[in-house]
Amino acid sequence: MFELIATDPESMARRGRLTLPHGVVETPAFMPVGTQGTVKAVSPGELDQLGAQIILGNTYHLNLRPGLEVIRDFGSLHQFSRWQKPILTDSGGYQVFSLAKLRKVKEEGVHFQSHLDGSKCFIGPETSMEIQAVLASDIAMLFDECPPWPCGEKEADVSLDLTLRWAQRCKEWILRNGPKTDTGARQYHFGIVQGSGYAPLREKAAKALATMEFDGYAVGGVSVGEPEEEMMRAVESSTPHLPVEKPRYAMGLGTPPQMLEMIARGIDMFDCVLPTRLARHGTAFTMDGPVHIKGKRFEFDHGPLDAECSHPLTADFSRAYIRHLFRAGEILGLRLICLHNLHFYQSLVRGARAALEAGTFAAYRAAFLSRYHSRPSVPSDL
Amino acid sequence: MFELIATDPESMARRGRLTLPHGVVETPAFMPVGTQGTVKAVSPGELDQLGAQIILGNTYHLNLRPGLEVIRDFGSLHQFSRWQKPILTDSGGYQVFSLAKLRKVKEEGVHFQSHLDGSKCFIGPETSMEIQAVLASDIAMLFDECPPWPCGEKEADVSLDLTLRWAQRCKEWILRNGPKTDTGARQYHFGIVQGSGYAPLREKAAKALATMEFDGYAVGGVSVGEPEEEMMRAVESSTPHLPVEKPRYAMGLGTPPQMLEMIARGIDMFDCVLPTRLARHGTAFTMDGPVHIKGKRFEFDHGPLDAECSHPLTADFSRAYIRHLFRAGEILGLRLICLHNLHFYQSLVRGARAALEAGTFAAYRAAFLSRYHSRPSVPSDL
Repeated sequence: MFELIATDPESMARRGRLTLPHGVVETPAFMPVGTQGTVKAVSPGELDQLGAQIILGNTYHLNLRPGLEVIRDFGSLHQFSRWQKPILTDSGGYQVFSLAKLRKVKEEGVHFQSHLDGSKCFIGPETSMEIQAVLASDIAMLFDECPPWPCGEKEADVSLDLTLRWAQRCKEWILRNGPKTDTGARQYHFGIVQGSGYAPLREKAAKALATMEFDGYAVGGVSVGEPEEEMMRAVESSTPHLPVEKPRYAMGLGTPPQMLEMIARGIDMFDCVLPTRLARHGTAFTMDGPVHIKGKRFEFDHGPLDAECSHPLTADFSRAYIRHLFRAGEILGLRLICLHNLHFYQSLVRGARAALEAGTFAAYRAAFLSRYHSRPSVPSDL
Repeated sequence: MFELIATDPESMARRGRLTLPHGVVETPAFMPVGTQGTVKAVSPGELDQLGAQIILGNTYHLNLRPGLEVIRDFGSLHQFSRWQKPILTDSGGYQVFSLAKLRKVKEEGVHFQSHLDGSKCFIGPETSMEIQAVLASDIAMLFDECPPWPCGEKEADVSLDLTLRWAQRCKEWILRNGPKTDTGARQYHFGIVQGSGYAPLREKAAKALATMEFDGYAVGGVSVGEPEEEMMRAVESSTPHLPVEKPRYAMGLGTPPQMLEMIARGIDMFDCVLPTRLARHGTAFTMDGPVHIKGKRFEFDHGPLDAECSHPLTADFSRAYIRHLFRAGEILGLRLICLHNLHFYQSLVRGARAALEAGTFAAYRAAFLSRYHSRPSVPSDL
């Protein structure tokens, strides 16, 4: 399922290949976020043109709306959404903690109220596995508890123990039901390393999950408000204890520089809402750092969003025109920056893959970071 | 510039061909509305795929934002927006009356405040011609006064006389400056028949404009709140007095049945915001009448929006999925219905053109109307 093609002698970075029921994912890979069965403002055909190899879907959201009966009726999330390449679904654990109302964490799972209509819901380890088998994703994530940040060490340890007991119950569910979706296709399962900012807890989690033997491993509980150094430390204290031959995924990360830093720390897969979320505010990623397109300085700018990273779908449009669309509240402006930002992220990991194959990852990383951070700051930009 | 290819023996319907600097427009034609230099949610490439031959841009809006200096810097609205086929621009007359604040109509033109920031503006016949020459549209509309509905006959007559004096000033501007844009391309000018619901005034307007000799003629002051019968009467009392050999355009119309009725009354060109505006509310046009996609009855519906009128860009998606996207507030839902509705309108006029060529327009019109109106009304639909 996972094959290591090259490793960087100077860091933990790896070039790999993940073979899934719906296609091959070359790693390091970036997964656009399709929370509700669609990546914001982008069609499946466009995603494909952007070079997306795999997207993420959210168990919590899809279970509430359209609901499992609809997905089951269509056969799978693939059939429902018409995205035919691989899908990874999260377990619902993170959303239960970030979105749901009146949640009660018990040993059996989490009782909560839907953020949509307040209706009473429950997700536990087995429920999460069942829902993801109906969604029929290529990769299903284990159900975990995501502690808030900051979090005391004792509290983090208690939470981690619950996550590990839930992981064991997921494992038992998989052994009982077979590692497959309701369509009969092979489904891969990734464990999630928790432990907040505490290196000993991260180590304990990684080792315990490795012993249970999953198909891959994720670092969770990052990008929850912690400083960047702590995010790096959470990954650094996890990856060395994870089996080398399995894929590793940093959940919910990150900015372009953070992704390169995480690749250097042995991460193979990423998902992040930043490319589409920042697009909504008119922020475009460029090789020279992010720019805020509404800025007056773009009023007469004939150039594309980023001359060095232009996709056929966006290259034709000037910054001045996209600025106009944004100021006028026109959806095409949002669409163009979404496409551009997603393309920027795909280009970044594509470049990392090529550099890892060529043995030049250190230079690639250094050159990207140096240029990305070098532009004098412009007040109207991020 | 305009060539009549076929005429219907049973009605005033005609099949024509308009040859413009940026391309050929086969008529009857529907022009998607690109008020601010973009058709809502749709890219120029997609518009092209939908079969749009010409789109409309709004002088009032574009003059305020991005402003003429930006368009002039790019050379034309075509260069700015990257739409390379023909563009028709309205004169700003209608928007000055429907959007602007604190307007004062004087003999020289209209003083008003921008609806965006309250800044003081002026548009008169010559200004409108100048702005449209900068926008460099293929067809420029004359500056007119659009009376409100209802409107007394005396008031309508006074308003019409002003419109005709302004038309004369537009004509003089054209004679003085040449019928060309700031890029040097030939620009065609259409006069606008006003006169509210009064047949004698419509006749007077049509005859006066015909005498001034413009490249085409429009029926304006329709779709301003009047009942459908009055809309039909306004057109019926205008077209017989317009020269047969010039194109005729009904401004701001209409529903699919209204378009067929207008074609039968001798209209060649249409523009309307309905396909995109109704899309925003989740309403899709089908051969069996409009449907409201959020309806519960579509929850498990695997079929496309309209099996008989599906475009490659939308045919792949089920009603259930599009319903889900709408309920979840996802932009892709809006995009798909926009594309579908615009395609529906293009299909309707394409069908009318084919029927006119084949001499079967009466049957085409009857079959479409009968089916469109035959579906039992569903409470959740329009």
